[in-house]
Amino acid sequence: MLNGDRDNMEGFFTLKLSEDKNALILLDQTKLPLEETYITLSREEDIWDAIRTLKVRGAPALGAAAAYGLYLSVKDSPAQSAQDFLALIDQKIAYFASSRPTAVNLPGALERMKCAAKAYAPEGVAAMKTALLNEAEGIDAQDKKTCLAIAEHALTLLKPGMTLMTICNAGAMATTGIGTALAPIHEGVRRGYGFKVFALETRPLLQGARITCWELMKAGVDVTLICDSAAASVLASGKVNAILAGADRIALNGDSANKIGTSMLGVLAKEYRVPLYILAPLTTLDRRISCGKDIPIEERPGDEVTSFGLRRTAPEGVKAFNPAFDVTKVAYISAIVTETGVIRPPFDVGLRDAIVFENDCNLDSR
Amino acid sequence: MLNGDRDNMEGFFTLKLSEDKNALILLDQTKLPLEETYITLSREEDIWDAIRTLKVRGAPALGAAAAYGLYLSVKDSPAQSAQDFLALIDQKIAYFASSRPTAVNLPGALERMKCAAKAYAPEGVAAMKTALLNEAEGIDAQDKKTCLAIAEHALTLLKPGMTLMTICNAGAMATTGIGTALAPIHEGVRRGYGFKVFALETRPLLQGARITCWELMKAGVDVTLICDSAAASVLASGKVNAILAGADRIALNGDSANKIGTSMLGVLAKEYRVPLYILAPLTTLDRRISCGKDIPIEERPGDEVTSFGLRRTAPEGVKAFNPAFDVTKVAYISAIVTETGVIRPPFDVGLRDAIVFENDCNLDSR
Repeated sequence: MLNGDRDNMEGFFTLKLSEDKNALILLDQTKLPLEETYITLSREEDIWDAIRTLKVRGAPALGAAAAYGLYLSVKDSPAQSAQDFLALIDQKIAYFASSRPTAVNLPGALERMKCAAKAYAPEGVAAMKTALLNEAEGIDAQDKKTCLAIAEHALTLLKPGMTLMTICNAGAMATTGIGTALAPIHEGVRRGYGFKVFALETRPLLQGARITCWELMKAGVDVTLICDSAAASVLASGKVNAILAGADRIALNGDSANKIGTSMLGVLAKEYRVPLYILAPLTTLDRRISCGKDIPIEERPGDEVTSFGLRRTAPEGVKAFNPAFDVTKVAYISAIVTETGVIRPPFDVGLRDAIVFENDCNLDSR
Repeated sequence: MLNGDRDNMEGFFTLKLSEDKNALILLDQTKLPLEETYITLSREEDIWDAIRTLKVRGAPALGAAAAYGLYLSVKDSPAQSAQDFLALIDQKIAYFASSRPTAVNLPGALERMKCAAKAYAPEGVAAMKTALLNEAEGIDAQDKKTCLAIAEHALTLLKPGMTLMTICNAGAMATTGIGTALAPIHEGVRRGYGFKVFALETRPLLQGARITCWELMKAGVDVTLICDSAAASVLASGKVNAILAGADRIALNGDSANKIGTSMLGVLAKEYRVPLYILAPLTTLDRRISCGKDIPIEERPGDEVTSFGLRRTAPEGVKAFNPAFDVTKVAYISAIVTETGVIRPPFDVGLRDAIVFENDCNLDSR
């Protein structure tokens, strides 16, 4: 069972800075559930690659990983002037931002890092490096706090004994804390709420089967794995009280991008009158995007669908279309839960009110 | 490219009786698309197992396979009296019927076999054996004709250049002919209709990826593979003109059981205003069942979802729920196409009118 600050996590963690602060240590999630392998990465290419290849994934965790990655990539820079150092930071931000396109937390965290460095520019490069380290650790710590707040607010929507459905892994393994969509499950189970969970396996990379089931079983949660295509049948049976999903990017009107299949759950939720709740930190809100159609959707390599490991499962040469995310429109969402509370429709109003953490450079976010 | 009678099929076939009529030869579909392996089965346990383990699958093909299996299992019986022989037939029918529970074509074909034997009981066991062989070959031949008729009627609903979506494999590999849901695609492509097809991979056993893509590529069809969970996103994009699916059992009111995920397509079809057409032979209609809730749904082993081949993809000990089929209610179906024509709602009336082939024993179906 996980407690709020993950002290009691049977030793597993998503990512953390090494004791000597020279490397990022992360659980290689591509190896789950067969192996719990922690890898120690200090080179920027290795961190970029870990993000790209989903060794670390989940929008909030990507923010923290990229922030630590940025710090590690510049901390030994010989740059003498603040200007040179900021130029280097810009270059590394562009590099890390290119790793994955959909989660807004990633460029958001990088932007926050830059602001922190900029604020200390008058004090010189050494102070800027310290600021970057503090900011990365701050993003990590804030993520943990945010998860707990999301859990608290989401639990006001749930009752003990409920059966919940979730897709992908918006859990502890997607954050540095107890997760977003899975946060109320972890916290509820800790309080003896006795939730049951249907986890969608989440093709093509099976984050539900591999990571959510692993994480929930570790936490002592009663979890049942189903194929994504069985969600309709399970929802039609009336067994599910609520669907909990995370988000990788939320537009100002509330349209939410999340793992491919979430929009299917939205349509089914509406049809079968089961509420769909999107649980995500406010860092997931993209204030430059007014509605879902403007959210960039990552299209990943077709071989994720045409092969399994090294074994082909579809004929050689077949075309495959492999969007990693889809957009669930507001009409299908019952509530969006952030660290500031439960937002009900109209989401554009609620989201505007909820923006309390501004990342703009003219605010000191330290 | 397939032509109607599959003469021009680059040598592939679903199943057939061996030249000496002592064995059933079938393409082991569990090996597709990596290997095209034909297996020759004469022992009843091997035929039962081939059905159980999906070496042969697809409702109409199951009917033909079971009919041939029944013939092969009794053809060398030493029974002297018609009564003893009929008792043996009953026993073998129960045996083959136990192989898979959802497709009604399977017990339907077996029942038809029994009627044929019964009709020749006065002429003795040898005549009954001949009748069984003729009946099995008749079921096979009728399946081929039925597929062509379904293609013809379904093409009245489609236009050249359309983009279609399908799930599982209701194709040539699910019948002894050119398929059911894929029949108009094969026939349309033969006529130069230039259809494009999105094939759902169809978890957990990937019949869409493995079999439909293989079959459609062999026939020169422009096919794109997607994860089942990407169907919502593709349908929302407006790219798809119609969804074509088969059925394993249709209730008298039109509720249709088909591969898990079809009911998801039904809900999405309604939401995104794309017609869902169910294409199936009338043998799929179960006249003892008034609506979908009475259709038995096969629940298959959880390890189909928790493992891939020999490799586990979910944690040891996780619960899995693995229904092989779901029921799409009539409200989501735009038309049901059988060999007799296109049936529009209200389906109960249309289906009643369409029942032209009666399998009751008091009718001579020879």
